[in-house]
Amino acid sequence: MSLAAALADELLPCTGTLRRAPFATPTVPARRGEIETVIALRHAGSKRLRLHWETQGDAGLPAVVVLGGISATRHVASNHLDSEAGWWECQVGAGLALDPAKLHIIGIDWVGADGDLDAPIDTADQAEAVAAVLDALGIARLHAFVGCSYGAMVGLAFAARHGLRLERLVAISGAHKPHPFASAWRGLQRKIVALGQLQCAEDHGLSLARQLAMLSYRTPEEFAERFDAPVALEGQRVRSASDDYLEACGLRYTQRWSATAFLRLSESIDLHNVDPAQINTPTTVIAVAEDRLVPLAELRALSEQIAAPCQLQLLNSLYGHDAFLKETDTFDALLRASISGDKQ
Amino acid sequence: MSLAAALADELLPCTGTLRRAPFATPTVPARRGEIETVIALRHAGSKRLRLHWETQGDAGLPAVVVLGGISATRHVASNHLDSEAGWWECQVGAGLALDPAKLHIIGIDWVGADGDLDAPIDTADQAEAVAAVLDALGIARLHAFVGCSYGAMVGLAFAARHGLRLERLVAISGAHKPHPFASAWRGLQRKIVALGQLQCAEDHGLSLARQLAMLSYRTPEEFAERFDAPVALEGQRVRSASDDYLEACGLRYTQRWSATAFLRLSESIDLHNVDPAQINTPTTVIAVAEDRLVPLAELRALSEQIAAPCQLQLLNSLYGHDAFLKETDTFDALLRASISGDKQ
Repeated sequence: MSLAAALADELLPCTGTLRRAPFATPTVPARRGEIETVIALRHAGSKRLRLHWETQGDAGLPAVVVLGGISATRHVASNHLDSEAGWWECQVGAGLALDPAKLHIIGIDWVGADGDLDAPIDTADQAEAVAAVLDALGIARLHAFVGCSYGAMVGLAFAARHGLRLERLVAISGAHKPHPFASAWRGLQRKIVALGQLQCAEDHGLSLARQLAMLSYRTPEEFAERFDAPVALEGQRVRSASDDYLEACGLRYTQRWSATAFLRLSESIDLHNVDPAQINTPTTVIAVAEDRLVPLAELRALSEQIAAPCQLQLLNSLYGHDAFLKETDTFDALLRASISGDKQ
Repeated sequence: MSLAAALADELLPCTGTLRRAPFATPTVPARRGEIETVIALRHAGSKRLRLHWETQGDAGLPAVVVLGGISATRHVASNHLDSEAGWWECQVGAGLALDPAKLHIIGIDWVGADGDLDAPIDTADQAEAVAAVLDALGIARLHAFVGCSYGAMVGLAFAARHGLRLERLVAISGAHKPHPFASAWRGLQRKIVALGQLQCAEDHGLSLARQLAMLSYRTPEEFAERFDAPVALEGQRVRSASDDYLEACGLRYTQRWSATAFLRLSESIDLHNVDPAQINTPTTVIAVAEDRLVPLAELRALSEQIAAPCQLQLLNSLYGHDAFLKETDTFDALLRASISGDKQ
């Protein structure tokens, strides 16, 4: 099976009824840039780092930072600088909840994403990087910080450290600390990468680690629907019905990411630890009941412990932790409700 | 941390209130033997195989086959031939539900367990091996077949193929077919072994595969209780709180099992497929609500589709799929209820 065929579902991310133009009209400004700054990393001392950002929407509009999972980038959605689909293509665009005609949308590349920084990073470091980018862009205060998965953890760290710079936080499928079982899964992913590295098969190990990560992002219910075929014997070996799909996910990941970036960002999730009592920003926590990586109980505890008013929005999805990448219509409605405010 | 320390909990399997003598008195007979026979393997043609068996209890007592997971052996419990603890040490012994003073307990090593047979095996092949051992022992009909996990799948295959030789089946945490998500986990485990083999690091890959298997056997709830410590930085690397435990599990596995045995038995689970309508044996299906490898819905479907009377016993356990190795008291009671009969 070809990579495209195995990933057919993944390559058509906008599965809801909402549609957007393939990329925004040139009348919506988009900008890209990078800054060089020194950040005192919590576990690795002060480092001079290059931070890469991309924005859409007029700089005078209410500013919203939008950050995704560890494999997301500053390219949130297609725009006239880059017509390629962004990681949240279905949620950011004309007429959608995150509309660059009404909001100044800001994305960044994660510290460590380029694979050059081989040192422990944590979410507090990422929050400092966001603050440094906002300084460079001249933004004193955000209308909202919308974070999904790792982005939600960074949002919580930002709210705890820079609460005065933030009006509201939307934390989607990310908690204040890692769950020990999820840490076990990630620890194993890193050991699989290390096995590959030991043996000069870095991409092979990285692909298998990504495949294991995919199994933590998705649900048995989805696999039961998609891959309910008898296993096949190829020669004298058994292949599972989902092998093509998972291998395509692994390959696509290794084409874009280095082992160092994966290892350091994976570790960063396990180093994440924010005290919700330090968060004085009004927050919406969005939880998916089927999420096996971030159990509902953790997000319930988070929403109860945040010092400011906090609303827990619970939804069901076959896609578990990855719901934010798949449930387009639901998230559009949730985002509209969560980020609306006097300024919009 | 030492291997023994990391596995402290695992090395003391009898955690219930029930206790048994370290090994049965010599007045309870125990026997061991092997037979050589030709079995027509479903996917690999006819093969001459050596089958290893061990029994406890007088040969005139009602016969009960007792089989465990893919890492279980013919040594079900300590006896005067072998004082080492067996894989079900807490359920088989004087005064327990499976009492060799009252029952003739029969265990076998799985076809493929010795690592010599490098060909696809399935549960129907294992059922034929059980039948061949019963022939050699002169047992026409079993009082009961008690199977846990893989043993339950083999029990279902045996009941479908040799129903006239079986009075009752107790199928614990094993269904009539693999779940696609569990097949995905196993497929990934096999690919991790293959990565190790490619690179002359077979035991390393096998250890990581076993660690992934452990994560499918256990539950987030157990890990949340056992490993709720902050992650540690060792040098510049993050280790998860459960890493010592999982690595000890992996090491112990590689000390006992070969990669070939693991691969072929893992595949065998994915090749397993029994039509419940072909089962005319009264059956007790025991399901654990927290089992992530064999979802409750599968066991419910199984119990509804078996042609003979079938009772579904549902329990809750922090140990998920591994409950049968941990919930000693509960299983003693369930086994008493399930295997009692006129002959006992």
